[in-house]
Amino acid sequence: MSNQKPSLPKGTRDFGPAQMVRRNYIFDIIRSVFKKFGYQPLETPSMENLSVLTGKYGDEGDQLLFKILNSGEFLKKTTAGDYEAGEGTMLSKISEKGLRYDLTVPFARYVVMNRHDITFPFRRYQIQPVWRADRPQRGRYREFYQCDADVVGTDSLICEAEIMQMIGEVFDKFGLTDYTVSLNSRKVLTGITEAIGAAGKESDFCVAIDKLDKIGEEKVMDELKGRGFSDEAIEKARPVLKMKEGNESRLAALEKMFDGSETGQQGLEEIRSIFSLMEAMKVSSANVSFDPTLARGLSYYTGAIWEVKVNNVKMGSVSGGGRYDNLTGVFGMPDVSGVGFSFGVDRLYDVMDELNLFPEDVLETTRALFINFDENSTKAVLPLLSKLREENLNSEIYPDPVKLKKQMNYADKKGIPFVILAGSEEITEGKYTLKNMVTGDQQQLSPEKIIDVLKNY
Amino acid sequence: MSNQKPSLPKGTRDFGPAQMVRRNYIFDIIRSVFKKFGYQPLETPSMENLSVLTGKYGDEGDQLLFKILNSGEFLKKTTAGDYEAGEGTMLSKISEKGLRYDLTVPFARYVVMNRHDITFPFRRYQIQPVWRADRPQRGRYREFYQCDADVVGTDSLICEAEIMQMIGEVFDKFGLTDYTVSLNSRKVLTGITEAIGAAGKESDFCVAIDKLDKIGEEKVMDELKGRGFSDEAIEKARPVLKMKEGNESRLAALEKMFDGSETGQQGLEEIRSIFSLMEAMKVSSANVSFDPTLARGLSYYTGAIWEVKVNNVKMGSVSGGGRYDNLTGVFGMPDVSGVGFSFGVDRLYDVMDELNLFPEDVLETTRALFINFDENSTKAVLPLLSKLREENLNSEIYPDPVKLKKQMNYADKKGIPFVILAGSEEITEGKYTLKNMVTGDQQQLSPEKIIDVLKNY
Repeated sequence: MSNQKPSLPKGTRDFGPAQMVRRNYIFDIIRSVFKKFGYQPLETPSMENLSVLTGKYGDEGDQLLFKILNSGEFLKKTTAGDYEAGEGTMLSKISEKGLRYDLTVPFARYVVMNRHDITFPFRRYQIQPVWRADRPQRGRYREFYQCDADVVGTDSLICEAEIMQMIGEVFDKFGLTDYTVSLNSRKVLTGITEAIGAAGKESDFCVAIDKLDKIGEEKVMDELKGRGFSDEAIEKARPVLKMKEGNESRLAALEKMFDGSETGQQGLEEIRSIFSLMEAMKVSSANVSFDPTLARGLSYYTGAIWEVKVNNVKMGSVSGGGRYDNLTGVFGMPDVSGVGFSFGVDRLYDVMDELNLFPEDVLETTRALFINFDENSTKAVLPLLSKLREENLNSEIYPDPVKLKKQMNYADKKGIPFVILAGSEEITEGKYTLKNMVTGDQQQLSPEKIIDVLKNY
Repeated sequence: MSNQKPSLPKGTRDFGPAQMVRRNYIFDIIRSVFKKFGYQPLETPSMENLSVLTGKYGDEGDQLLFKILNSGEFLKKTTAGDYEAGEGTMLSKISEKGLRYDLTVPFARYVVMNRHDITFPFRRYQIQPVWRADRPQRGRYREFYQCDADVVGTDSLICEAEIMQMIGEVFDKFGLTDYTVSLNSRKVLTGITEAIGAAGKESDFCVAIDKLDKIGEEKVMDELKGRGFSDEAIEKARPVLKMKEGNESRLAALEKMFDGSETGQQGLEEIRSIFSLMEAMKVSSANVSFDPTLARGLSYYTGAIWEVKVNNVKMGSVSGGGRYDNLTGVFGMPDVSGVGFSFGVDRLYDVMDELNLFPEDVLETTRALFINFDENSTKAVLPLLSKLREENLNSEIYPDPVKLKKQMNYADKKGIPFVILAGSEEITEGKYTLKNMVTGDQQQLSPEKIIDVLKNY
C-alpha cells in the first residue's frame, strides 16, 4: 500500500479552511434565521434502510441511490442462480442500506416514527449532506449539503408568509439585494388547465411549462401540442405565458380567467392572503413576484410553490419550496400537511463569491501570532498568550524558533492581522512590539494596550 | 411500498431537537476552544476510495469498513468465476469506495494532496461523523461523531502543553471539574522495556499493560509471561505498575531506572518540559497525572500520549491523543510529525447528562409564543412579532386559531418560557398580556416593556 498517490472519489470535495469559514458564514446566517422563527434542529443518520428510500424518488432516483454493501459475509445469502439472475436479484441480497438522497424522506420517516412524541405543529430545520450517484459535472456533486426547514401539522398561510420573511432576512444578511422570489400555487396551475379546457392534464402542463425559461414560449407550445393539448387550449394558454409585470394586474387577469375554476380561485385567494399577511408583518414584497408560469418539478407540492433566483447572475434557483398535503402517507400516516423550503448552499457560495459578498474578515481565524525567538523569550510571553485567550482573542505562538521571515510568512498566509514580537529587551521593559500585518505599522505597547488594540480591531 | 412501518438501520440514531441542542452545546464549546488556539476547520468527504482506507486500520478495521456498491451496473466487471472465487474477489470488482472510518486517515490524505498549498505548521480541527460496521451495543454506534484537532509540521512541545490547556478549558466550560488527564510518553514505555531487559518488546509490553485497568496487576503479569517476558523482567516491571501518586516522585524514580536508556530519559525530559511549559502558561497541572502505565492502543504514536477520564463516573476515556512522527508516510510523504487529540462526544453527552451539567436554558429554542385567537387579532400582533425578531429574540406565533389550552400546551412542551396574548381589548389599548410560563405570572405591558423583559430573561 505504501507510496500510493491518494485521490478523492469523483464528485466529492475537501473543504479546506478558506472554504470552510465561508461556508460556515453561510450556514450560520441561515441557521440563525431558522432559529429566530422557532424552527428546531434535527439530524437523521446518513444511512437509511433501502426500504425507506426506494420508490420515493422515481426510477431515476432509485438508480442514483448510493447503496451500502451488507457488512461481513455479504455473499452469504446469495446463490449462483442469483448471480445469473442479475443485478436486481443480487442487490436485494447483498445490500439493505443506502445513503440519504435528500432530507425530506428522512424527515417524513422521523415524523412517522415519533408521531406520539412530537408536539405539532412541528417546525424543524436540518442541515446535512446528501448523496446522489449522478454524473459529476460543473456545479453538480455526488455529496452536497442541503439546508431544509419545514413546518408540519398546520395549513395556516402564516407559514408561507413567514417563509417569505425568512428568505428576505437571509438574503439581507448576505448583502444580496437584487433577487426575485417567483411565487405561484399548484392550484393556479390547475385553474389554468381548467380554464383552457384541459382539466386533468395538470401534470403534462407543468412538465411543459417548467421548461419555459430554458426553451422559450414557442417550444413550450410545441411540447403542449405533442402532449395532446388542442390548438384552442394552447391559444388560450398563450397569454398566461407572457403576462405583464405586476402582481395585482396578474391576479386580476387570472381572476377573470378562473370564472369557472373553483380550485384556481382558491389558489389566487391564497396568493392574496400571503401578500396581505406579509403586509401585516411589515415585510416588503418588492422582491416577490407572482408568476403563474412557475411549475417546479416536484410532484408532491399541492399549494403555494416558489423559487428564488439572483438577478443578473447566471445560476439556477438558490432557494425554493412549497406546500404539500401528504408528506408521510407513504409511511402509513395520512393527512400530514406542511410547507417547507431549502437553500442551495453550493450555489449561494458561488453567487456570493462572484459578487464579492463575503466580508473580508470572514477569513480571519487567528487575531494575533506571537513570534518565537527562543525558549526563554517564549516562556516569557506565554502568560500574555494565555491572557489574550482569556479575553476570547484567537491567538497562537509559532511553535518553533525558526527564521523570522518564515514566521512572518506564516502569519501572512494564514491571514493573521497582527504579530507580537518580544526580544529580551522588550521582555525586561514589559512592553511588546505589536505589528499590524496589513499596514505594516508597529508600536511598543503594554499588555493591556495590546489587548485593547486587538479587541477593537 | 405503501403503509410500511419505517425503521432505522441498527446502530444508527435520530437526534431530535432536545438532543440536538445539547449536542450543539458540546460541539460549540469544543469548536470555540479549537478556534481560540488557532486551529482551522477542515471537512473531508464521507466517502473515500477504498485504496485510501484499506490497510490503515489492521485486518479488523478493514472488516469494519462500510463499503459502497459501485453505481450503475455493478456486476458489469464480474464473471461467474469471480462469484465462485468468493467475497474478496467480488469485492474488488463491485466496490471502489467506503465510508470514512476515522478523521485521521482522511486528514493525512488531505495533507499529502495539498502539501504544496498548506502553510506548515498546519493546525486543523475536524468535526464530522465516522462509520464502523461494529456490532452495535450500549454506547457503541455504527455512525458517530469525532472531534479531532491536530497540528502537523512541528515537533515543538508547546503543542502538547497547549493541548493540556485546551482540555482544561473545555472541561472548565462544561463545568466538569473532577477529571484526570493521564499523561505518558511512548518513549517512557520504551525506556521501561529497556530497563527491564526486554528491549525491542515494546509493543508486546504495551498490549499487556493496556489492560491493567481491566484485568489488574497479576493478570498483566501472566500476560507478559505468556508473551515471553522473563521472570526477572516481570519482577523488574512490577514496581512501575504500582507507583505512588505524585508526578515528581514518579519522574525521579524512573530517572534512576532509566540510567541505561537514552530513549527513556528523553521521554522523561519531554514530560518535564510539558509540565514546565504549562507552568509558564499559568495553566494548572492539578488534573494532569504522569502515568507510566498508560499505553493507548494506537500504534502510530511515538511521543507523548494521554487520555482523559471523568472521576467517579463509569465511563471509558472521554478524550485522548498523542504525538506521531509519521502521519503521511503511507501516502508517500515521509517525516510529517505532529500531535493530535479528540473528544468523544457521545460519552461526554452521557457524562454531562448523568452529572446534570447541561444548563437549563440550553433547551430553550424559542423565547416567546404569540397566541393565535383569530385572523384579525393575529394580523394586529404580527408587527410586534416582527419587532421581536428584529431584536434577535427567537419567537413564533401559533399558526392556527385553535383552543387556548392546546396552544399553551404547545408552549409548555416546546419549553417556551413566555406567551403573549392579545385580545381585541388589548390591541386597542396597545398593551399585551405577557405570561411567564414558569412562574405563571402575567402582566399587561407595552411592546417596549415586553422586549425589555424578554431580553433580560
